[in-house]
Amino acid sequence: MSPKITVELLRQLRQAMRNTKYIAEPIQAYIVPSGDAHQSEYIAPCDCRREFICGFNGSAGTAIVTEKHAAMWTDGRYFLQASQQMDNNWTLMKMGLKETLSQEDWLISVLPENSTVGVDPWIIAADQWKNMSKALASAGHSLVAVQDNLIDAIWMDRPTRPSTQLLTLGLGFTGLTWQDKMTALRSKMAERKISWFVATALDEIAWLFNLRGSDIEYNPVFFAYAIVGMNTIRLFVDIKRLAVPTVREHLQLDTPSKVELSIQTAPYESVFTELQAVCASLGPKEKVWISDKASCALMQVIAKAHRSPIPYTPLCLAKAVKNATEIQGMKMAHIKDAVALCELFAWLEKEIPKGTVTEISAADKAEELRSQQKDFVGLSFPSISSVGPNGAIIHYRPLPETNRTLSLNEIYLLDSGAQYIDGTTDVTRTMHFGSPSAYEKETFTYVLKGHIAVSAAIFPNGTKGHLLDSFARQALWDSGLDYLHGTGHGVGCFLNVHEGPCGISYKTFADEPLEAGMIVSDEPGYYEDGLFGIRIENVVLVVPAKPKYNYRNKGSLTFEPLTLVPIQAKMVNTDLLTQKEVSLGNIHSFKSALP
Amino acid sequence: MSPKITVELLRQLRQAMRNTKYIAEPIQAYIVPSGDAHQSEYIAPCDCRREFICGFNGSAGTAIVTEKHAAMWTDGRYFLQASQQMDNNWTLMKMGLKETLSQEDWLISVLPENSTVGVDPWIIAADQWKNMSKALASAGHSLVAVQDNLIDAIWMDRPTRPSTQLLTLGLGFTGLTWQDKMTALRSKMAERKISWFVATALDEIAWLFNLRGSDIEYNPVFFAYAIVGMNTIRLFVDIKRLAVPTVREHLQLDTPSKVELSIQTAPYESVFTELQAVCASLGPKEKVWISDKASCALMQVIAKAHRSPIPYTPLCLAKAVKNATEIQGMKMAHIKDAVALCELFAWLEKEIPKGTVTEISAADKAEELRSQQKDFVGLSFPSISSVGPNGAIIHYRPLPETNRTLSLNEIYLLDSGAQYIDGTTDVTRTMHFGSPSAYEKETFTYVLKGHIAVSAAIFPNGTKGHLLDSFARQALWDSGLDYLHGTGHGVGCFLNVHEGPCGISYKTFADEPLEAGMIVSDEPGYYEDGLFGIRIENVVLVVPAKPKYNYRNKGSLTFEPLTLVPIQAKMVNTDLLTQKEVSLGNIHSFKSALP
Repeated sequence: MSPKITVELLRQLRQAMRNTKYIAEPIQAYIVPSGDAHQSEYIAPCDCRREFICGFNGSAGTAIVTEKHAAMWTDGRYFLQASQQMDNNWTLMKMGLKETLSQEDWLISVLPENSTVGVDPWIIAADQWKNMSKALASAGHSLVAVQDNLIDAIWMDRPTRPSTQLLTLGLGFTGLTWQDKMTALRSKMAERKISWFVATALDEIAWLFNLRGSDIEYNPVFFAYAIVGMNTIRLFVDIKRLAVPTVREHLQLDTPSKVELSIQTAPYESVFTELQAVCASLGPKEKVWISDKASCALMQVIAKAHRSPIPYTPLCLAKAVKNATEIQGMKMAHIKDAVALCELFAWLEKEIPKGTVTEISAADKAEELRSQQKDFVGLSFPSISSVGPNGAIIHYRPLPETNRTLSLNEIYLLDSGAQYIDGTTDVTRTMHFGSPSAYEKETFTYVLKGHIAVSAAIFPNGTKGHLLDSFARQALWDSGLDYLHGTGHGVGCFLNVHEGPCGISYKTFADEPLEAGMIVSDEPGYYEDGLFGIRIENVVLVVPAKPKYNYRNKGSLTFEPLTLVPIQAKMVNTDLLTQKEVSLGNIHSFKSALP
Repeated sequence: MSPKITVELLRQLRQAMRNTKYIAEPIQAYIVPSGDAHQSEYIAPCDCRREFICGFNGSAGTAIVTEKHAAMWTDGRYFLQASQQMDNNWTLMKMGLKETLSQEDWLISVLPENSTVGVDPWIIAADQWKNMSKALASAGHSLVAVQDNLIDAIWMDRPTRPSTQLLTLGLGFTGLTWQDKMTALRSKMAERKISWFVATALDEIAWLFNLRGSDIEYNPVFFAYAIVGMNTIRLFVDIKRLAVPTVREHLQLDTPSKVELSIQTAPYESVFTELQAVCASLGPKEKVWISDKASCALMQVIAKAHRSPIPYTPLCLAKAVKNATEIQGMKMAHIKDAVALCELFAWLEKEIPKGTVTEISAADKAEELRSQQKDFVGLSFPSISSVGPNGAIIHYRPLPETNRTLSLNEIYLLDSGAQYIDGTTDVTRTMHFGSPSAYEKETFTYVLKGHIAVSAAIFPNGTKGHLLDSFARQALWDSGLDYLHGTGHGVGCFLNVHEGPCGISYKTFADEPLEAGMIVSDEPGYYEDGLFGIRIENVVLVVPAKPKYNYRNKGSLTFEPLTLVPIQAKMVNTDLLTQKEVSLGNIHSFKSALP
């Protein structure tokens, strides 16, 4: 991996920072965040601006360029990768280390007095803008919105924004028509006396309209915005995409059944002026719902008196609770996924002794086998296919220069998943094709105990996922071990493999309580730097439980595993399992792992 | 319990709200919070202003009086009590119910346009002022500080502020001189470039100066403030208390060893003007540390540019980690406390069959037996002595009209503790003096399993207490049961029985990580409304653990119980305990409970 040479790019960017074509007055610093205008986790090539300017292509990182300095902040997952991908014009700011200054403090330490810091208001979230702006103001500087993106201005061969074909999903996949979803949304709005809702997250818009795209790799979404009023629906999307008869029919563009379900379409870029028009006509007490993670550009269109920012939109909450059709689809997807992975593991057992299988070829084989399953669309994230020490790199992705060969001597960890039209999968299995050591088996078994403890947990209705996180760690903690990531995330149904508002983590973020119908992952692990990595991940469905009692009629919940891929028996030290774990393991598809 | 008649008091208060002797312009509402100027949990009689105006004497509640309305907000623990103690001039606002308006929303709903709401800035915390002020401003009203307390103005027989004798504690009890503590505080200040620290919490001031008082029942503290600079110490306290030679010598008032350890004393009330003087002389970059729970009155003396509010002061953090002398003292206190309680339970076994022991007389006997122990000072909180259904009222305190007789048929729950000069205790035992039912034993055993799970938990250094809370609930959850309170709180050493910054709770408050030397309670429970209550509480010390491995050299922690009172064997269904719990139980002083 050789670093990107950025001398010339930085010269051009600094020139742009002084160019009155883009800004009235020169700016002394320019912030380049990671995300796109929808705060997507995965982004399209045209939005990889931070990578373009500094070379670092990890999923998280913010670059800041001043007249003299260039610095890039990322977290512990990416210290090595970033240091290899960036040239020495860049300073790597290692987040999480005590001595590392925050972006604000660094800016304050390097900027001349009364400086102006610029950022593209479309790719900074409203809440981040607020914090940054406040911190800079307290030190006499100011944060300004630069409407033209300065990276785009110097990015000669910037890819165009994707505009892939839209896929319409019928009731057999969605369980609810988009009209039903619209009605439910409006009743939530009426309940809270909200006049308008601005949808900015791509997966929420895809879910609402029962449409899918492939604008972003791994995520079946399409670039769009929506503005919904009590009698109005505005969809902002590349108009060319709506020329297809099936799409027109699906959205009833030509023959709306009712006035309030008639969709007005407009170009993607016109959302700004249309939202301005909506806001200009608001009555004095009217309120507009918008995610607090929406772009600063859109948030600021709405006057403070009308703005009602929310951490989780009603679409996010509704989407998280899967209906019977979606659950059935997710189950089907997991059956197909398990078939493909069983084929893979059988193939690996046969091929590994020949010494020809590598991390990359194993991942490719997994994709090939999955692609033979019905309604396969693509992978749901880049496969983490890792041998031995590479397994200890939690977000590892095999590259030609790191690619190891699978052998009978090292542990193999495969964390992978797929998008099928009926559902999304995400599964991790850790295996040994020779003879695992006693220590490998011991730590694997602790991870398995944690995995079972979460999967079999019974808890009252209304419990938030973060309260279950320690169950996954107890067996490891008892032996002085731990893992430094959360235990689970929400999973979409033929949508993003990571979705809110629920999860299982020691980090206390504002997660919403678990509800029957929600789907999350259960994935504790253990990582021994330089040696191996272990992770056991199932996707699990929240279901009602029926324990002996029912305290205050609150009801109880538990999990039903959707993932059906067996766990490798030889990795388990069964002496370390309790009888209860053995029996729970039987129920929960760990059968092959147990005596 | 008959309600307090408040017609005349409300008339007088409303008159005061219009009286230009106290305020320049009439105010349309007056807020009467619960606390004192130090945000103490327990308060002195002279500070019981909310009780005076409405009659309700629970530990939590806020009264608001407008020209036409009077309303009082309290939580679920107190709905019944408040409704019995308040007359019909008052509306009980049941916090936690969906239909109940917040104080802000209620004010906005009843006030005429452009109203002014008053509050005594000394008894409202700075963070509460901020929220209330913002909410009122958004609706066109304003919050103003009324310097003269309007309740005091109409409270004819208001008790005087206590000024009890000060007790000096030597090294044998504290382990550190106040001079050492002052030096440690100043080094924390230097580390963070802080010029001044304002101490407002009574237990922090008592701890810092190695002094105790008895101004507030159950809490061995005294009314005071302190302002500490790098070369200055100012102590604000009723000057009369400093006339005692032992106190003068302890504080080296007449012969300071060093200039920077010379204490300047001033009257309690002069803290405001002295802080003004300190702030007036601040250099442009100087910062002042103050708790964000300090009174609005003091917070506002410090200009925003100089203010550095913190959730936990360095004194709070230092006080929480007990030194070897304090740990030894806490152990001694718990030995004495266990002797007294064993005597009590032996006495109860003998006396209960006679039918003459009541909740009140049992609590009195417990106090009498404790008072015979060396260095006994008083109780550490009002004893919760409860029989049968009263046990299900979590914060029950026996009153003549609720007093039940202990019998062979009902469960008895005693949650009590004492202050000894060497330490503070807090213990709950639940017993049956006849034959407990199978259901009582079953639920008791689930609570015991949870209690053992926390007490025996091993967890990495740096873990916050809230991550352990679910361990206490797992056995109950498995059977569909739960309890609606946290699992543990910090415990002071001959100081407040509840102290920050650590705890064990499902509520994610900003708790600090557990550290070796911290002391918390472990007290899961189960409550069956109208039938019985179960709680098992030990005070436990955080100690290093030595599990098999040591992941990333982080080190592990566990708990050592300080409480030595046996758990009643006949309440345990041993079939429900695992072998591991039985052996852990043996280690952890549950011996008498086990076969």
